[in-house]
Amino acid sequence: MNLINYGEKFFDELEIAKYKRKEVSVEVELNQISMSSTGDRAVTVIRGIKDKKLGIFIVDSDDEGEIKKGIEQAAKNAMANEKDEKWEGLPGEQKYNAPNIEINYEIKNASPDFFVNLLNEAIKDVRARDERAMVAGGAAGSSWLEMRISNSHGIDIMQEFGSTFMYLYVAGRAGNSVTPGIMDFDVRRDMQLDKDFVVSSILEKLKYAYNTKKSDKNVGNVVMEPLALAELLYFTLIPAISGERKVKNTTPLSDKVGQNVLDEKITIYDDPWHPMSTNPIIADDEGVAARVNKIFENGVFNGFLWDNYWGNISGYGSTGNGTRNLSTGGIGIGVHNLVIEGGKKSKEELMEDMEDGFLISGFQGAHSSNPDTGDFSVVANPAFKIENGKIVGSTVFMLSGNVYSLLGNVADISREQRKIVVMGNGVIPHMLFENLKIAPVSR
Amino acid sequence: MNLINYGEKFFDELEIAKYKRKEVSVEVELNQISMSSTGDRAVTVIRGIKDKKLGIFIVDSDDEGEIKKGIEQAAKNAMANEKDEKWEGLPGEQKYNAPNIEINYEIKNASPDFFVNLLNEAIKDVRARDERAMVAGGAAGSSWLEMRISNSHGIDIMQEFGSTFMYLYVAGRAGNSVTPGIMDFDVRRDMQLDKDFVVSSILEKLKYAYNTKKSDKNVGNVVMEPLALAELLYFTLIPAISGERKVKNTTPLSDKVGQNVLDEKITIYDDPWHPMSTNPIIADDEGVAARVNKIFENGVFNGFLWDNYWGNISGYGSTGNGTRNLSTGGIGIGVHNLVIEGGKKSKEELMEDMEDGFLISGFQGAHSSNPDTGDFSVVANPAFKIENGKIVGSTVFMLSGNVYSLLGNVADISREQRKIVVMGNGVIPHMLFENLKIAPVSR
Repeated sequence: MNLINYGEKFFDELEIAKYKRKEVSVEVELNQISMSSTGDRAVTVIRGIKDKKLGIFIVDSDDEGEIKKGIEQAAKNAMANEKDEKWEGLPGEQKYNAPNIEINYEIKNASPDFFVNLLNEAIKDVRARDERAMVAGGAAGSSWLEMRISNSHGIDIMQEFGSTFMYLYVAGRAGNSVTPGIMDFDVRRDMQLDKDFVVSSILEKLKYAYNTKKSDKNVGNVVMEPLALAELLYFTLIPAISGERKVKNTTPLSDKVGQNVLDEKITIYDDPWHPMSTNPIIADDEGVAARVNKIFENGVFNGFLWDNYWGNISGYGSTGNGTRNLSTGGIGIGVHNLVIEGGKKSKEELMEDMEDGFLISGFQGAHSSNPDTGDFSVVANPAFKIENGKIVGSTVFMLSGNVYSLLGNVADISREQRKIVVMGNGVIPHMLFENLKIAPVSR
Repeated sequence: MNLINYGEKFFDELEIAKYKRKEVSVEVELNQISMSSTGDRAVTVIRGIKDKKLGIFIVDSDDEGEIKKGIEQAAKNAMANEKDEKWEGLPGEQKYNAPNIEINYEIKNASPDFFVNLLNEAIKDVRARDERAMVAGGAAGSSWLEMRISNSHGIDIMQEFGSTFMYLYVAGRAGNSVTPGIMDFDVRRDMQLDKDFVVSSILEKLKYAYNTKKSDKNVGNVVMEPLALAELLYFTLIPAISGERKVKNTTPLSDKVGQNVLDEKITIYDDPWHPMSTNPIIADDEGVAARVNKIFENGVFNGFLWDNYWGNISGYGSTGNGTRNLSTGGIGIGVHNLVIEGGKKSKEELMEDMEDGFLISGFQGAHSSNPDTGDFSVVANPAFKIENGKIVGSTVFMLSGNVYSLLGNVADISREQRKIVVMGNGVIPHMLFENLKIAPVSR
């Protein structure tokens, strides 16, 4: 707490957040290892408040001298700023829940070699099992994070954990043309990346990608895969549960607490300690105790997520959802690991009764969705046509709608969930929707 | 050359590229200093070739032990890769031109304080001179680069230089509405950032932004400011002069060398040593001697830019335009400092004779232009309506066309040039175009 004491000479209250990240990354381009890299980087963020004036300084070091200089610079930054009359104070001492999660220290010392071999084997497998297939892109690697959050109100929490990932993006050559690219991935908090699953899952879909089917239907039953669902939710539903938007009145959920908002089959919580989570935090980026937050329970909206600042303003208090943007140093409200509860049927069973429908693996254009209303307009690609319970070919179509109407009427949910790390962390099942309005893509 | 010798045990030839970057950055949000930061980062890229198989490794360190490990890992990466039969070899020893450029060492030790004060004064000036104005965003800072490129063919070149920047983004409150945001900036290779110019230039435009004019014309005379012109060129003309595209036949300039392609008023060269350049390199990222390359001379296309790889394949040889992507380690073809020669008239004179026309400060949507054809479709915003040589209000309109038709018929070019660092480096004047087809924006 030496540095905190030093900082108290300049500030009424202050926070020092240190992040150290070790990363290994190996990349694939056109069936080759295009590069590998290692990184080892420290970043310290100083956030100090004097007379309700905020100063933030970021230094890419964990050296004590640099941090002291940073504290002084943060104080100068604060000086010329205006008072934030809404500022109430940094969080105070916490009681932390100790989740029962084993940390895998192998990840800390993972070598590029391990991932080079894994990817080379995966490339060999893909090409041996389908000679028309090429691994257009891919990557694998590890990330190990050590963070320590301290503040002048008695918070001083240290935590460390790591994760590994791999993904491949495969296309097939069919004469002069190339199939749509098929992607699959694995993300884990140990070193047991499931290369065979990734390869098999891709090749199974690639078989059908050689056979492109035009989509000319206007209404269809649709199974969305976890990644597709996550892409949609991260630009529509997730922003809407932020307490900041509640205060600013820019969420359609403003007056919906306690009400039926989604289909009663849907239960969603933010659970950093879920067995599949790769973000098993004890404390958030402000040092506030992490916890499991129910967001929707059988379709009923349970309440917003808060960081310390907006939680103080609203009176709800922080829900442990303060997340730091390391390029601005600022705290925002974020989900640590969004879990959508699985259902009873297998994902195959969701498709079994489909006479004529679609499977969606991914969306394009989800980023232009409107979080204020939940409206979206996306292209389903890659997507597959299903006839009599079986995939018969790949297709592309438009899907426009509103996330609350969509999730207000879910036909079924798979029991399998996938760990997703695109945009944010999540553990997401497949979902079946009936009679969705769809439109052909005009090109 | 110790490390190169070490690497020759593993490779037929190899290159070690070390980059050390010191950065200071201060950001503004809503009239406040939102944060300041310092960074000091080393990255070493190892590129080795064994039996025409390429291996790349990146490590964020300049430590000898780490680089040795990196060399070994790069060798392992190369091993499993396929031969690149087109590979001819890394560049050999060079004769470097020593440009007459003074390096400003103040920038190396610039402190965040300097930029905090500069921005605070700028914020104060903006608000004092227009009480409805707010500085919505902005930043200032410095960047100092030290690079050393060595290879096993005798290249070993060290160079260092720095630059500073500032920009402000200002909007005005007019009753319940807010004007379009007006941005201006300065970029230099010394510490003399011209705050007064930035503030005055913004406020001069902001005056007119309070007065929004609908644009309902179909044809108009247009002056494009340097930034707007750069935004357009960097997604249309610049990709088209890459030798890689010549080899792959994806540029409309393929068979145009020696021909009149642009208006004869236009002369464009890549000149790293231009007095306004902030990228005064002696050697490119492969250690090839930098030089001034004429690209268009009085409208005639003089030839493509090449890096070592594509230059070898084409037989033209490198033009010193190899630029490294530090996230993939790979070399591509890039412009170091695109200079469009200025004309005789002042920018005010370009507008003087305009009875009824437009001034365009920036474009939206330029990134979706088609570099294969030069076609673009953009929204001019912010833009201003000119009547009888004077700005009378702000406006927005669509501009669709083809960059070769546009630059094939230029009415005039200003003698003033601006240093631009958006997308790439450039020194760009204003241009006047007559009778451009424009369209109102439908909302």
